[in-house]
Amino acid sequence: MKKIGVIGAGSWGTALALTLSGKGHQVTIWDVNPEHLSELEQNRENVRYLPDIKFNDNMKIGKTAEEALQDADVVLFSAPAQHFRSALKTALPYLKPDMILVNVAKGIEQKTLMRMSQIAFETLPQARYVTLSGPSHAEEVGKSLPTTVAVASPDLKLAEEVQDIFMTERFRVYTTEDIVGVELGGALKNIIALGAGISDGMGFGDNAKAALMTRGLAEIKRLGVKLGADPATFAGLTGVGDLIVTCTSMHSRNRRCGIMIGEGMSPEAATEKVGMVVEGMYTTEAAYDLAQREGVEMPITQQLYEVINGRADAKSAVELLMGRERKHEQA
Amino acid sequence: MKKIGVIGAGSWGTALALTLSGKGHQVTIWDVNPEHLSELEQNRENVRYLPDIKFNDNMKIGKTAEEALQDADVVLFSAPAQHFRSALKTALPYLKPDMILVNVAKGIEQKTLMRMSQIAFETLPQARYVTLSGPSHAEEVGKSLPTTVAVASPDLKLAEEVQDIFMTERFRVYTTEDIVGVELGGALKNIIALGAGISDGMGFGDNAKAALMTRGLAEIKRLGVKLGADPATFAGLTGVGDLIVTCTSMHSRNRRCGIMIGEGMSPEAATEKVGMVVEGMYTTEAAYDLAQREGVEMPITQQLYEVINGRADAKSAVELLMGRERKHEQA
Repeated sequence: MKKIGVIGAGSWGTALALTLSGKGHQVTIWDVNPEHLSELEQNRENVRYLPDIKFNDNMKIGKTAEEALQDADVVLFSAPAQHFRSALKTALPYLKPDMILVNVAKGIEQKTLMRMSQIAFETLPQARYVTLSGPSHAEEVGKSLPTTVAVASPDLKLAEEVQDIFMTERFRVYTTEDIVGVELGGALKNIIALGAGISDGMGFGDNAKAALMTRGLAEIKRLGVKLGADPATFAGLTGVGDLIVTCTSMHSRNRRCGIMIGEGMSPEAATEKVGMVVEGMYTTEAAYDLAQREGVEMPITQQLYEVINGRADAKSAVELLMGRERKHEQA
Repeated sequence: MKKIGVIGAGSWGTALALTLSGKGHQVTIWDVNPEHLSELEQNRENVRYLPDIKFNDNMKIGKTAEEALQDADVVLFSAPAQHFRSALKTALPYLKPDMILVNVAKGIEQKTLMRMSQIAFETLPQARYVTLSGPSHAEEVGKSLPTTVAVASPDLKLAEEVQDIFMTERFRVYTTEDIVGVELGGALKNIIALGAGISDGMGFGDNAKAALMTRGLAEIKRLGVKLGADPATFAGLTGVGDLIVTCTSMHSRNRRCGIMIGEGMSPEAATEKVGMVVEGMYTTEAAYDLAQREGVEMPITQQLYEVINGRADAKSAVELLMGRERKHEQA
């Protein structure tokens, strides 16, 4: 059994803490928000983000980051992508070279356009760092519904160590070496989920959404391959798998936000109404910039970028996408 | 404007007849069931399979196949896959060499294990034959919701002719030369839809279903490529696009049938309750045979085959799939 410190007590961090403690690991969870921490302590439950699931006895609430990370074998980062850099900075004084760092944030840092692993390796070039990603709504993992994810590291041995630590009957973990593809698939799919939500919100049906998702996957892959990802990764759990789960489920904040935009709400108002981080909004901007920089055609991303920035309304953007002049499917 | 004869007045044949007549083509629809035909005539609406949408004035009901096919420029076959051979035989006396034959049936013929185009070209080696497929629930096309499909023929010029005939603002048509991939994607996805339904019926969530769909797509592609398809086709509208729409929508008969099996109903009872053809049941058997013949590993298809034939119960089949020993994602 391992000592595991979890940084970030959102829905996903909590669900993973439950899975890990349920397996017998000693888990200590900590969050940057002290009010949220006292609620966790008081209720022994994450009433805010993952209600109705009581914490296991071997799951502790850390009062400080130090308490969570002290002597940990594994540090699990589950802060939102835009806060990973600061979460890492907070953790830094307590990290030791042999600790395994697992990050579940899905996103691209604004302005720097860096993937999460790039941020980690910039700070700690020798880090034993692994990305965990895949089709995994926290709500379902919290209820022990069957889920499969992938852990990615160029160091396959390290990925296998993490696999052994996380794997249960109901939480299946696969390994892959393609950390670039896994990170980009997990981040960029949120753009398409926003678009899928807009399509749904406009009253379009499953046919239109499936077409959008198909084209979305193609443009994600196009950018990913340009950035060094293995194209096969986009056909796997962290690519099409995560895209499907995000675009078709009401659990997805990105999709819910899109639905409200499609129904006519402003992007700002929709984001506020969702109440949690809508990573797809940031990712759209980052992907737009990356696509420009790399010279990759990403029509869906571009249209969404215009919508988010108030330069196009959702309706004309989607109609433009539907009507796009393209005659041959592989063209 | 063209004269178009439609053979088969199910939901899909009717929706396409509405689309085509809405565009101004002279459409005559015929069905092998005379009782159904008189209902169509009487109601000017397909109350049975596509209710609440009135027929356009330039859409006629043929009393005989001859009446539908006489002087037609295009013959649209929309019989269920297992009945395509007999539909073709019925049409044969009235077909002329310059007529374009468009088939929308998605399936593999039982026993012969032939694709629809193989049946057509066996009978008519010089046929101007095109397959139309993609993520397209008839209910949505009937309501003019945005939809995209592909038309496939090794003869791209012919596919482009069909594209021009069918294309509207709301019904976007792309062309491809990979008829093998298009036919197999459209047929085999029904297997995965059955499986997705079973997973849903057992109370599993979106995470499990996304994993099943991801692995399902991989095994469909594996068989398809072995049979001569272009692997890229499975990443397109007629591959992953159609898979998504079929596995996630309640419109899908295959998924609905699977849900009932997952809830504990016998495969026979579930099929009967759906009331329309559940093509996935046949396709599972055919794909199982093809996989055996070609030596291709198709674990989902194999488990579903056992379930359909009463040799495994749905619960243990799905658990077996979830728990399958496989550690590396690309393995």
